[in-house]
Amino acid sequence: MAYRETEKMRLRKAEIRQRIFDCAYQRVSEGGFRNAPINLVAEQAGVATGSVYRHFESKAELFAEVFRRATQIELDKVATALTGDEPALSRLEHALRQFAERALRGPVMAWSLIAEPVDPRVEEERLNYRRSYAEFFERVILEGVEAGSLPRQDAHLSATCLVGALAESLVGPLSPPQQTAAAQHMPSAQDSSWQKVLIEPIIDFCMQGVSGQRR
Amino acid sequence: MAYRETEKMRLRKAEIRQRIFDCAYQRVSEGGFRNAPINLVAEQAGVATGSVYRHFESKAELFAEVFRRATQIELDKVATALTGDEPALSRLEHALRQFAERALRGPVMAWSLIAEPVDPRVEEERLNYRRSYAEFFERVILEGVEAGSLPRQDAHLSATCLVGALAESLVGPLSPPQQTAAAQHMPSAQDSSWQKVLIEPIIDFCMQGVSGQRR
Repeated sequence: MAYRETEKMRLRKAEIRQRIFDCAYQRVSEGGFRNAPINLVAEQAGVATGSVYRHFESKAELFAEVFRRATQIELDKVATALTGDEPALSRLEHALRQFAERALRGPVMAWSLIAEPVDPRVEEERLNYRRSYAEFFERVILEGVEAGSLPRQDAHLSATCLVGALAESLVGPLSPPQQTAAAQHMPSAQDSSWQKVLIEPIIDFCMQGVSGQRR
Repeated sequence: MAYRETEKMRLRKAEIRQRIFDCAYQRVSEGGFRNAPINLVAEQAGVATGSVYRHFESKAELFAEVFRRATQIELDKVATALTGDEPALSRLEHALRQFAERALRGPVMAWSLIAEPVDPRVEEERLNYRRSYAEFFERVILEGVEAGSLPRQDAHLSATCLVGALAESLVGPLSPPQQTAAAQHMPSAQDSSWQKVLIEPIIDFCMQGVSGQRR
């Protein structure tokens, strides 16, 4: 009996932890990390504020977990977009465009992941993930160089340039004042003209940087 | 007499404020923001920890001021490097190379300014300054496009790509574990081979991104 009680408690605890996490995740996706103060997360999850800290060491740890979950989804998408038999440059283009399109379709969460000023603990996760993106790009650039479809270059540095160029040029369009403007001027998330104006110049720069050829 | 006393107090207060600021600035330049906890800054300045808060609203405000002072120096250098009669692309190249060289010569402060995980208040300053860098680059790109030496492009987005590519590709080489490695492998700050290996590929990418031509 004692064992069964413990097991039940363990499940119950895991369930509450998951509920707190889900509420934090939802609040971040709706309004960024600044939209997820612990008291409101707790309220939404139906627990006392203090009890959040029985499941997460700190607010920073909870946020770091939200950050990892959300970013891993984007990283997996990029990784998938980079696979295939197409030439390296086409795969890079596909991955960058998909990343940018997904960011513009979910600008609030994208801004939180890319640029929202956050606790140093979450910022560390951001630096780690940027390295992961760069590693994926680097592998594909190396493939292109080996296949002779891309000029010789320092694949690692070109990859970090790609990550930086993409992220930095999305910061402005994604940042809160622009989100409002975007919402006003953007009849639908699929508005291809808005995306074109914004995404194509970024892709141009990135493809030219890697290939040394006018796109 | 009362007036003179007040004036004296004002000067004394300004002097203490300056001393606290200078100590914070020095500690950041020697070991990053994490090297500048308020108690040590206060100790070094010869004041009580609590008295720091009579001169600065918060640690974040003090750090933001240190950040602004240090970054403004770099921004001014970039602005100067971008002026002149040379073609736009040459001026951009000059400015990027100078920024990167200065960063590698002062890697601790450079890393703190570019990438050290910091309080959200300081992160906001970082976002602001990145916009300022981009504005300088944008103006020069526009000049190049108008002069016909650069292809037509969205100068604003190309400029943000430059800022992102440059900053992101310096993060790794500047980050603390690499700083040690760099110190070991770098006989002098002027070691041009180390700089070449690191800086030239970044410049290649950036110049190709802007010009669409192999460098």
